Amino acid sequence: MLRIPNERLERYLHLRREFKEEKYINLHPIQRGGVLTDAARKVLLEFGDGYSTCDWCPPKTPRLDAVERPPIAQFMRDLAEFLGMDVARVVTRCREAKFIAFTTLGEPGDYVVLDGLSHYSSYLAAELARLRIKEVPHTGYPEFKVDLSAYAEKIEEVKRETGKLPAVVLLTHVDYLYGNLNDARIVGKICKEYGVPFLLNAAYTAGIMPINCKELGVDILVSSGHKSWAASAPTGILALKEELADRVLARSKITGDWSKRKFGLKEYALLGCTVMGAPLLSLMASFPYVVKRVERWQEEVEKARFLVEELERIEGMKQLGTKPKQHTLIHFESDGFYRVSQTHKRRGYFLYEELRERGIVGIQPGLSKHFKLNTYGLDWEKIRKVRDAFFEIAEKYGLSSS
Amino acid sequence: MLRIPNERLERYLHLRREFKEEKYINLHPIQRGGVLTDAARKVLLEFGDGYSTCDWCPPKTPRLDAVERPPIAQFMRDLAEFLGMDVARVVTRCREAKFIAFTTLGEPGDYVVLDGLSHYSSYLAAELARLRIKEVPHTGYPEFKVDLSAYAEKIEEVKRETGKLPAVVLLTHVDYLYGNLNDARIVGKICKEYGVPFLLNAAYTAGIMPINCKELGVDILVSSGHKSWAASAPTGILALKEELADRVLARSKITGDWSKRKFGLKEYALLGCTVMGAPLLSLMASFPYVVKRVERWQEEVEKARFLVEELERIEGMKQLGTKPKQHTLIHFESDGFYRVSQTHKRRGYFLYEELRERGIVGIQPGLSKHFKLNTYGLDWEKIRKVRDAFFEIAEKYGLSSS
Repeated sequence: MLRIPNERLERYLHLRREFKEEKYINLHPIQRGGVLTDAARKVLLEFGDGYSTCDWCPPKTPRLDAVERPPIAQFMRDLAEFLGMDVARVVTRCREAKFIAFTTLGEPGDYVVLDGLSHYSSYLAAELARLRIKEVPHTGYPEFKVDLSAYAEKIEEVKRETGKLPAVVLLTHVDYLYGNLNDARIVGKICKEYGVPFLLNAAYTAGIMPINCKELGVDILVSSGHKSWAASAPTGILALKEELADRVLARSKITGDWSKRKFGLKEYALLGCTVMGAPLLSLMASFPYVVKRVERWQEEVEKARFLVEELERIEGMKQLGTKPKQHTLIHFESDGFYRVSQTHKRRGYFLYEELRERGIVGIQPGLSKHFKLNTYGLDWEKIRKVRDAFFEIAEKYGLSSS
Repeated sequence: MLRIPNERLERYLHLRREFKEEKYINLHPIQRGGVLTDAARKVLLEFGDGYSTCDWCPPKTPRLDAVERPPIAQFMRDLAEFLGMDVARVVTRCREAKFIAFTTLGEPGDYVVLDGLSHYSSYLAAELARLRIKEVPHTGYPEFKVDLSAYAEKIEEVKRETGKLPAVVLLTHVDYLYGNLNDARIVGKICKEYGVPFLLNAAYTAGIMPINCKELGVDILVSSGHKSWAASAPTGILALKEELADRVLARSKITGDWSKRKFGLKEYALLGCTVMGAPLLSLMASFPYVVKRVERWQEEVEKARFLVEELERIEGMKQLGTKPKQHTLIHFESDGFYRVSQTHKRRGYFLYEELRERGIVGIQPGLSKHFKLNTYGLDWEKIRKVRDAFFEIAEKYGLSSS
């Protein structure tokens, strides 16, 4: 029998997280929207056991989205409605939702048109679906603004090259690099003209800001529960217009050659059931809170703008991406701090360490010339603490401020 | 702005599970191996927040399996070693692990040879990977024994039909219908002779019984954390021999046509990172316990055999599948209870309801002619309570027992 020595097993006995919300101000760019509500915390324990969501799996329609106790079926309907969509499923990750859309709407060799600031997982989802990609350019430094009107041009290019339309068009609603918000309406209109399915990657937007897919002309919305819906990882959202549901949620057609078994109820690209446990329940428990919090989005933007305005007073600090901020994910260029790092014995790590001494984490250790942070969900007091910390550090190292 | 009425949101405010371990004896066939340890429960809260595993994502190798705090990287190594494998990854579900193997080892149109008792998700994984399947038959009623030697024949059939070998051969170690244990060595040997990768679906075995892939001749092991490793859903295990790691965990090759971006560190079929949160940590927290518990497997089998022997004394009760039991998942045929259901006003539901009144749940409501249960992890006292409950119900409805 294979054994693992006890001293190695001991490492797993007391797994603790250092950067708890109650202890630190965490500015981690991907973490702010995924901080759990108290209700979500409670439900993790309630439904922690494997397959605890399956106690009441309906015998005649054995599928996660058909479970009525807990109210998963109702939740899928409410989730769709909240996004201005017709049908919703919870899948394991936003990237899986993209893959599901790509593989069901495209044939190997087909194209996906996407913005050049797309997350790596959008590219990988295309790669796994054996699709090719064509990128829509952005303007580069310092705004990195995606040229939305160029979507039409890229669709035309695909048509010329392959004689057919792209399988899907993807727009990253807010990108992970600069936190630029793109006007989905523009791409929605173009896609409608061409009759191409329009997928909006709302990983950084749905769940923290209001979204109405009908207004935006979105056919497929994907999002991330652990990024923006106060849910545990892994949870992804796949929301669809009715017209696409038959294709994206197509039922299994495979038949056993000997047994003649069939699985015609199962949605094959989802591989049947998806998140049969605690993270789904955390998404559901946070939902009433999420529905309310999106209404307070404008104040979140104001806090981000305030922090940008303040920090840009420090020598060499400059917010990259479009201005003014329309999102809480912020990318700073900071020539001043970079200059300090050149002669500091801790090099670029000094900034991380100085912040941490002041109870602030989430800036990537080692970075000082460019770094990202996210203010989402921090109250004004914490925002001011962050501002003060940066000013203190600037002063300590002789950087001027206006 | 889209709003959901408060009265609908209220449904999500107090999500509670009825069938808690401390309240009921739960015999649910898929749930016994996924009951959390106390350590796993604690860690769910610790790492509940979305992306909480990513606090220390290494900037130069930003990938989940490279994270050292918490010790995810070490865990992947220990997990592989514990299974007698070289490399391991935690993916979102056992079915995803199968899909990853199929899609990376096969080209569209290739074959998977699998046993006719395979789980539906094995079929769907092949379908999603655009592979065809060929089934190895079983003997049917009452043993449902898979004809393992027929794997060679089926591989030959594929060769004749397509001129090439199957992409993968899959054996379900213990099937979900009858709980029959298959001798993986036999199929391992056949696959080695043909040079075909051998995938063992150990969803019902790894994590509860000892497995050594080297001894069994397994090239790819897939398993389910929430089914058999005392972990929260969703968690899947993908463990590989070194020789296959380059193919199954192949890195992304896609390149942005305009941006020239590449993602050469990411494992494309995993879509990059997988379970970046609480369920992975629950798997890690339970690991020291799981490593020990597999050593007590023989006693678990004894408890299952004891219950079978006892319940077969009731008129019309018969265990289906091979005998004696080598696993804790048990399928009963029960003509006696079925006869009772024919005149009972609650029809087949009477059995479920009678059991529940006695604090026992997990038998599918409505079934009385055939039903499954799983005794894994129940102590002798609970096993006897289950036995007594069935005898009480039999007596109440006038069934004889020996």
